[in-house]
Amino acid sequence: MRFTFLGTSAGSPTVDRNVTAMALALDESRDWYLVDCGEGTQQRLLKSRYTLSGLAGIFITHVHGDHIFGLPGLITSASMQGRKEPLMICAPEGVESFVRHSLKCAAVSNMPFELNFIRSDQPDFHFQDQRFEVTAHELSHRVPSFAYRFQEQPVIQSMDQEKLASMGVPRGPLWGELQNGNSVALSDGRIVHAQDVRLPPLSGRVAIIGGDNDQPDLLIEAMKGVDVLVHEATFTDPVLEKVGPQYMHSTARMVGEAAEQGGVNYVILTHISGRYRKNSSEFASSVEALRREAQSVFRGQVELAEDFGCWALDRERNLSRIE
Amino acid sequence: MRFTFLGTSAGSPTVDRNVTAMALALDESRDWYLVDCGEGTQQRLLKSRYTLSGLAGIFITHVHGDHIFGLPGLITSASMQGRKEPLMICAPEGVESFVRHSLKCAAVSNMPFELNFIRSDQPDFHFQDQRFEVTAHELSHRVPSFAYRFQEQPVIQSMDQEKLASMGVPRGPLWGELQNGNSVALSDGRIVHAQDVRLPPLSGRVAIIGGDNDQPDLLIEAMKGVDVLVHEATFTDPVLEKVGPQYMHSTARMVGEAAEQGGVNYVILTHISGRYRKNSSEFASSVEALRREAQSVFRGQVELAEDFGCWALDRERNLSRIE
Repeated sequence: MRFTFLGTSAGSPTVDRNVTAMALALDESRDWYLVDCGEGTQQRLLKSRYTLSGLAGIFITHVHGDHIFGLPGLITSASMQGRKEPLMICAPEGVESFVRHSLKCAAVSNMPFELNFIRSDQPDFHFQDQRFEVTAHELSHRVPSFAYRFQEQPVIQSMDQEKLASMGVPRGPLWGELQNGNSVALSDGRIVHAQDVRLPPLSGRVAIIGGDNDQPDLLIEAMKGVDVLVHEATFTDPVLEKVGPQYMHSTARMVGEAAEQGGVNYVILTHISGRYRKNSSEFASSVEALRREAQSVFRGQVELAEDFGCWALDRERNLSRIE
Repeated sequence: MRFTFLGTSAGSPTVDRNVTAMALALDESRDWYLVDCGEGTQQRLLKSRYTLSGLAGIFITHVHGDHIFGLPGLITSASMQGRKEPLMICAPEGVESFVRHSLKCAAVSNMPFELNFIRSDQPDFHFQDQRFEVTAHELSHRVPSFAYRFQEQPVIQSMDQEKLASMGVPRGPLWGELQNGNSVALSDGRIVHAQDVRLPPLSGRVAIIGGDNDQPDLLIEAMKGVDVLVHEATFTDPVLEKVGPQYMHSTARMVGEAAEQGGVNYVILTHISGRYRKNSSEFASSVEALRREAQSVFRGQVELAEDFGCWALDRERNLSRIE
């Protein structure tokens, strides 16, 4: 499972960070999902491993400009590149109106593919395809905002060779039939079914990607079984105290506390205020201040998202930065 | 007069070129005008000398996504930065609806400044401020498209010292009064008016910035007195022949011919198809092919726009690249 950050700033772009967007993919796959689409996402994509033709779907957390203003351009470019496959966009109310009106104003017509909008702010929202099951979890922000919980589909395993041997299934064509999912008859008349000799499916990896939110503890229940939490940490506690709570964002400490209670192993902090710099001479205004604050209350591993940074969660549930 | 290119690609961004946007300014001034605003313009700005607080106005040539999708984000960021001055946007029909609907969807409210839209597709369109007089000239494209002709306001000159001497105006306080635009009485009773002893005003420099267009000769009349023509050259002739005329864009040759007839001194080609590369091994797909095609029919100077490239036209009407 790979998390590639295309934009990690809060509200406005900075020289180093673009507004919010993240690519989610399964390992080496070129098929990918986009979570949020701030202005300039298609430009970021040009420097990533992902293309518009491999885009399997879009999830929008909430209807603020820094999370949606890249949609019309991205869709127009996909159209100019001749994409044929329908594009699924899971989003709260407002996104469909924004996208369709923008495309109409800009005289984008005769699109070679369909846009399928799915309202993710409906109580019965649930999405699944061959890769993921996705649910939405309401957050607390100035507009309706959601986190998406991506549960990888269970991975079908190969055959249990010990079991095959103990059952006396001879190696050869019968193994091939079972491997292909068929049932076979042994010479003594017994019937063996493929599903009975497979290793149990591997449970899928799970990640939550949150939208803007000032109450990360709303996610504690959804964090059950989750490996990685990607969550905004716009501020540190001392800065929130200065600017006040009216913007309804989280501090790194709040995210760390919720992650600790939720029992996840990894937290990736993103949506970082422009006041925090990578190489700030003053610790309080360095991104390390965010990391330390979250880490001080969380026993798992804290990572700081960066534009073009890519983290991989392997099958053994180890998260490491690979780009 | 400075032309700073923030985006020079056609239709979609490439790794090197963003979609269309250009900053126009008078020499060293930090106040500037934006002509077109493709997606990602505010990000380009972060690496330029210009800021959103110095933005004196926006001119949109036509309502295609690659020329307007950057507007909602740019306006939102100006709002977050606390801009107070009203922002003037001269644009054809459709832009106001796109911008206002986008901001409404994204819950941008309580903007600290006003948006003043002026319809530039009206026959009586004419804009002027202390720096420029601007007229709009209709082009030929798939949607209504316009070129803007920016005429710098005449520059008031200092006093004609020879004339002052010949009139017997003594140096000192009287010169100061005249310099300040007042009239003075000489000791012999004669009255001298400031306007009578000033050098004649310098005529302003003039540039045309065009939108998408497949008939550059439509601008020949407007080119009278123009120093610099900035015009799209999406293709070369051989490529246009292959792709066909349906996209309604110009070739470099067409622009060169119109510029030659119009009598301008300089042409800057922009809105360049992604197939032309800077260091292409094949001449036909190099940007130099565009330059050579225009230059072959134009006796003036041809320049090729590049992102972040800045050209300056000095008072003596010499154009040179300074960045």
